[in-house]
Amino acid sequence: MGSDSDLPVMKDAAKILNMFGVPNEVRVVSAHRTPELMYSYASSAHERGIQVIIAGAGGAAHLPGMVAALTPLPVVGVPVRATALDGVDSLLSIVQMPRGVPVATVAVNNATNAGLLAARILGASDANLRARMSQYLEDMRDEVLVKAEKLERNGWESYLNP
Amino acid sequence: MGSDSDLPVMKDAAKILNMFGVPNEVRVVSAHRTPELMYSYASSAHERGIQVIIAGAGGAAHLPGMVAALTPLPVVGVPVRATALDGVDSLLSIVQMPRGVPVATVAVNNATNAGLLAARILGASDANLRARMSQYLEDMRDEVLVKAEKLERNGWESYLNP
Amino acid sequence: MGSDSDLPVMKDAAKILNMFGVPNEVRVVSAHRTPELMYSYASSAHERGIQVIIAGAGGAAHLPGMVAALTPLPVVGVPVRATALDGVDSLLSIVQMPRGVPVATVAVNNATNAGLLAARILGASDANLRARMSQYLEDMRDEVLVKAEKLERNGWESYLNP
Amino acid sequence: MGSDSDLPVMKDAAKILNMFGVPNEVRVVSAHRTPELMYSYASSAHERGIQVIIAGAGGAAHLPGMVAALTPLPVVGVPVRATALDGVDSLLSIVQMPRGVPVATVAVNNATNAGLLAARILGASDANLRARMSQYLEDMRDEVLVKAEKLERNGWESYLNP
Amino acid sequence: MGSDSDLPVMKDAAKILNMFGVPNEVRVVSAHRTPELMYSYASSAHERGIQVIIAGAGGAAHLPGMVAALTPLPVVGVPVRATALDGVDSLLSIVQMPRGVPVATVAVNNATNAGLLAARILGASDANLRARMSQYLEDMRDEVLVKAEKLERNGWESYLNP
Amino acid sequence: MGSDSDLPVMKDAAKILNMFGVPNEVRVVSAHRTPELMYSYASSAHERGIQVIIAGAGGAAHLPGMVAALTPLPVVGVPVRATALDGVDSLLSIVQMPRGVPVATVAVNNATNAGLLAARILGASDANLRARMSQYLEDMRDEVLVKAEKLERNGWESYLNP
Amino acid sequence: MGSDSDLPVMKDAAKILNMFGVPNEVRVVSAHRTPELMYSYASSAHERGIQVIIAGAGGAAHLPGMVAALTPLPVVGVPVRATALDGVDSLLSIVQMPRGVPVATVAVNNATNAGLLAARILGASDANLRARMSQYLEDMRDEVLVKAEKLERNGWESYLNP
Amino acid sequence: MGSDSDLPVMKDAAKILNMFGVPNEVRVVSAHRTPELMYSYASSAHERGIQVIIAGAGGAAHLPGMVAALTPLPVVGVPVRATALDGVDSLLSIVQMPRGVPVATVAVNNATNAGLLAARILGASDANLRARMSQYLEDMRDEVLVKAEKLERNGWESYLNP
Repeated sequence: MGSDSDLPVMKDAAKILNMFGVPNEVRVVSAHRTPELMYSYASSAHERGIQVIIAGAGGAAHLPGMVAALTPLPVVGVPVRATALDGVDSLLSIVQMPRGVPVATVAVNNATNAGLLAARILGASDANLRARMSQYLEDMRDEVLVKAEKLERNGWESYLNP
Repeated sequence: MGSDSDLPVMKDAAKILNMFGVPNEVRVVSAHRTPELMYSYASSAHERGIQVIIAGAGGAAHLPGMVAALTPLPVVGVPVRATALDGVDSLLSIVQMPRGVPVATVAVNNATNAGLLAARILGASDANLRARMSQYLEDMRDEVLVKAEKLERNGWESYLNP
Repeated sequence: MGSDSDLPVMKDAAKILNMFGVPNEVRVVSAHRTPELMYSYASSAHERGIQVIIAGAGGAAHLPGMVAALTPLPVVGVPVRATALDGVDSLLSIVQMPRGVPVATVAVNNATNAGLLAARILGASDANLRARMSQYLEDMRDEVLVKAEKLERNGWESYLNP
Repeated sequence: MGSDSDLPVMKDAAKILNMFGVPNEVRVVSAHRTPELMYSYASSAHERGIQVIIAGAGGAAHLPGMVAALTPLPVVGVPVRATALDGVDSLLSIVQMPRGVPVATVAVNNATNAGLLAARILGASDANLRARMSQYLEDMRDEVLVKAEKLERNGWESYLNP
Repeated sequence: MGSDSDLPVMKDAAKILNMFGVPNEVRVVSAHRTPELMYSYASSAHERGIQVIIAGAGGAAHLPGMVAALTPLPVVGVPVRATALDGVDSLLSIVQMPRGVPVATVAVNNATNAGLLAARILGASDANLRARMSQYLEDMRDEVLVKAEKLERNGWESYLNP
Repeated sequence: MGSDSDLPVMKDAAKILNMFGVPNEVRVVSAHRTPELMYSYASSAHERGIQVIIAGAGGAAHLPGMVAALTPLPVVGVPVRATALDGVDSLLSIVQMPRGVPVATVAVNNATNAGLLAARILGASDANLRARMSQYLEDMRDEVLVKAEKLERNGWESYLNP
Repeated sequence: MGSDSDLPVMKDAAKILNMFGVPNEVRVVSAHRTPELMYSYASSAHERGIQVIIAGAGGAAHLPGMVAALTPLPVVGVPVRATALDGVDSLLSIVQMPRGVPVATVAVNNATNAGLLAARILGASDANLRARMSQYLEDMRDEVLVKAEKLERNGWESYLNP
Repeated sequence: MGSDSDLPVMKDAAKILNMFGVPNEVRVVSAHRTPELMYSYASSAHERGIQVIIAGAGGAAHLPGMVAALTPLPVVGVPVRATALDGVDSLLSIVQMPRGVPVATVAVNNATNAGLLAARILGASDANLRARMSQYLEDMRDEVLVKAEKLERNGWESYLNP
């Protein structure tokens, strides 16, 4: 992430990866404040065995795109809501990359989905991880079904005021 | 893709995958017009050995997100410019997915980057493909350097009016 | 609705329908988390005697459009404000449907109007319900007239500080 | 519709209704230029046996909302792209109605969907019309499937350059 | 104004008019809830000696434009911030009027300026009122100059923490 | 107007004023290129007997607001579409004036309405001009009614293809 | 700045300049409320030895552009968030200047960057100041590196909950 | 500039600098395609005697901000209109820089103003250049005055149709 102020948002990606048992490291690397660190980190990541990079940043969020320019790995970008413009600036800065250098962009502040996307990416060639992702989707479904059933059984008035 | 009218945009993804020697299939599957086909296609893709799905759609672009809800595979979403709103509608429909179901969104109409992102995703566990992606980045660099040198050598007036 | 977190908004539709004596059911059906349930619910609704479906969702709000693709019934869509983008994302995801599959979209978070629209739809072939809608419009008018008269009588200073 | 300049867009609604055998009338009624006509037309429509009103307008598109305020019937609103703002102005003017007076809004310039929505509304209490709508959805599906099969059979290169 | 909930915003217009000694009346007239009242109020205002109408409304703010369609008088429109869209919807609904029917639109929630604009309009043919408007501009200038001087004299640190 | 490139848009205001027999002058005065001229023009206009000023400009359109700061007269602002941002920039630059200095803003590129608004402003104290404005509204109504009748008589197919 | 209400934002520019030892003055000059003062201040600034002007304003923020029209000096513009539109209005009013009169615009509410930009501008011809700016960049880098190291050492859980 | 496709826009900056006699170099340096070149170019520019850098880019325009992170020099950013989003993406990517690293942003596609801003920056410490900028402002004024006089003399009809 580009700043430690992004951590309350970005920690959700780490949580998801931990939940899936995917080893991960959480680092602060700023495109604008530590450009050399970003350069060395991004361009050597694949040599250290890193398989996916998740990059989150706010405002003129250049980190995900710059990292993508420096690595052959897939880069997941998380637009962080950090300015008066409610994350529209970071969303467009991350998603509108020119031909040649893609960033896999997720929703504003949605680091959970960044973690899940990284797990899906690794699962593309890991049947076990893919199976756990299928299980995750089923668990989500079951959670919703439990709530849906409770709502249907109790009616919405008592659901809202238990 | 959601409609054959998206093909002039989406063909760029196929071109990239062909260039990288990645086997691929190009299909029309509409979330709104062929929901059963979408359901069966998306939920069985990983069983057929598909590793990544690229989904492009315009307007209220539901295809990428619905496919992502039905598969544990990584799904790349391409917002296609198809309405009066210049692709803003499809961008937001694709990228703003709720927690639990991520779509790896690229820029409006940028199917080239969708192809490249798919190649990077496969390259996460394929050193050979990853090396070709590194080479691709170097080739792009060299192309720019050739142009940059020509511009510097000739000056911008003669570059614009050769 | 797509999530029980939408209930505080969506309950207003149920309230209106109850007020008009229109039988209704309140259900949680998620396009992304329970796609099979959505499929079976939407495609069989008209066989169960359902005449109108109101679907509310936030962010990349795919539920209304997907339901509309699976039923011949009129579908009313309620964009719920659920992300940093203040409901613009859900509004565009719901209203910008492609030719062939319409969603009757109302204002962001305005489930009251979704209930009223459903009542009007049923009233298109039910003179009694239509008459009650005419009465509802007159009641609203009278409420405003009472306030208007009070404001005129007391002046705005005392109206604001009674 | 608010102006005869909207006819090239709005005629698509009439086409759909004719296709479904739904009797309809096409009229120019302007909220701003013929407010009395709008008033008498809208407030008496249900007495003439009209069951649904489709209203299309551009810019500060007040026609659909004003008509909805004057009738107990369901009103379908079509935002027409008519100004420098690409239909965003008419979309918001139509969809963001206050509590009490709903307009069933469809996508910018999508009068086809307005016609389909009107047919669905009438079909809510007309099993025959509803069955034809189900057939319409199946026909759309089949059209897409034919194209999808052709694309799969021929490959995208020859599909684009037949 | 369209609703008594707009009064906390719209009262600023009355305050300004009172300050300038311009007789005025404050009324609730809703385009959507009391269309007949709006019709009679707007179309007869000039016969009652009204010279300018200020109309404020939120969301799909049709009141100012409809009033302007029914009167030959100048109509000042105040977009009120009343929905999730922060007044963008009411601004566009009010300002984007079609050729033929103008609304003199001021900034979102800025009823003060609506009152001042009404006073300027009346001052166009009233030298005394115009002189008071010139005085008002000078008074504003002097207020700023006093603050400016204080800031310059004390420095910004002590100005912020007196 | 701020530039002679605005003349193709702004001439419509002069046409309207000529049609209503309102004497007017058409001038180029740029806030950014001729600030002294703007200053002298705006601050002395009321002394020359000018009663209303119409100011049109594109991009960061400062002319209407600056003129309003320098005169006690009513100022009508026309946002001209002049940049890549389609007039949104000029609309916001003109309409979002701070408390104290109002600009009567009309729709993007709608100088016709600026002329009509100026005529209404003068008509606030000129019964004859006001009567002509009422007549203008009636003429517009009649024009629409003629078209509406023709459409109804001939049907939309032959109306579109006469 | 255009108003003393902008001071809590704009003071950050003064802080930066003080930190770099750059002499500066903090003044309230309003384009709309004190146009003469603005005129005299801006057109004479370069004669008083001023080298850069920082101008901040909200809403229809005309101050930076008008100052730029009156001086040959570089003008830095700070869009202040002051209205319902979250600073989008002031951003566009400041940055979208027409050809001929540039304003060096920074991010919404980011007066810190305005101060830094002014220091860089002065540093363009002042090696000592430029060296301090290089040092400032290094200090920022070091601050981030300290945090990054702490995060890496302690892990994100204990970083968030020390 | 980030690509030679930006040259038709960016050449206007060179033209202005040539007109002012300011030595300049025109280079293609891409943040995403030649990150190493960007790194070395930006971080060494001030050592080569460069005093101001103008950087233009489209889409997710990271070049200006990344250059600003690598140099103590003032960096002028030009948002180039290059995607379906009409330059809004590049504008926000360039202007919304985080605290610490400013970019002096000008209007979308307005490289003329970038050249002028660079000249003003150099003029901050060069009385001769500053005098020429004052002259440039006067020349613009005179050009407008000539047009204004011609318009006044001939009337707008003959001005438009000479």
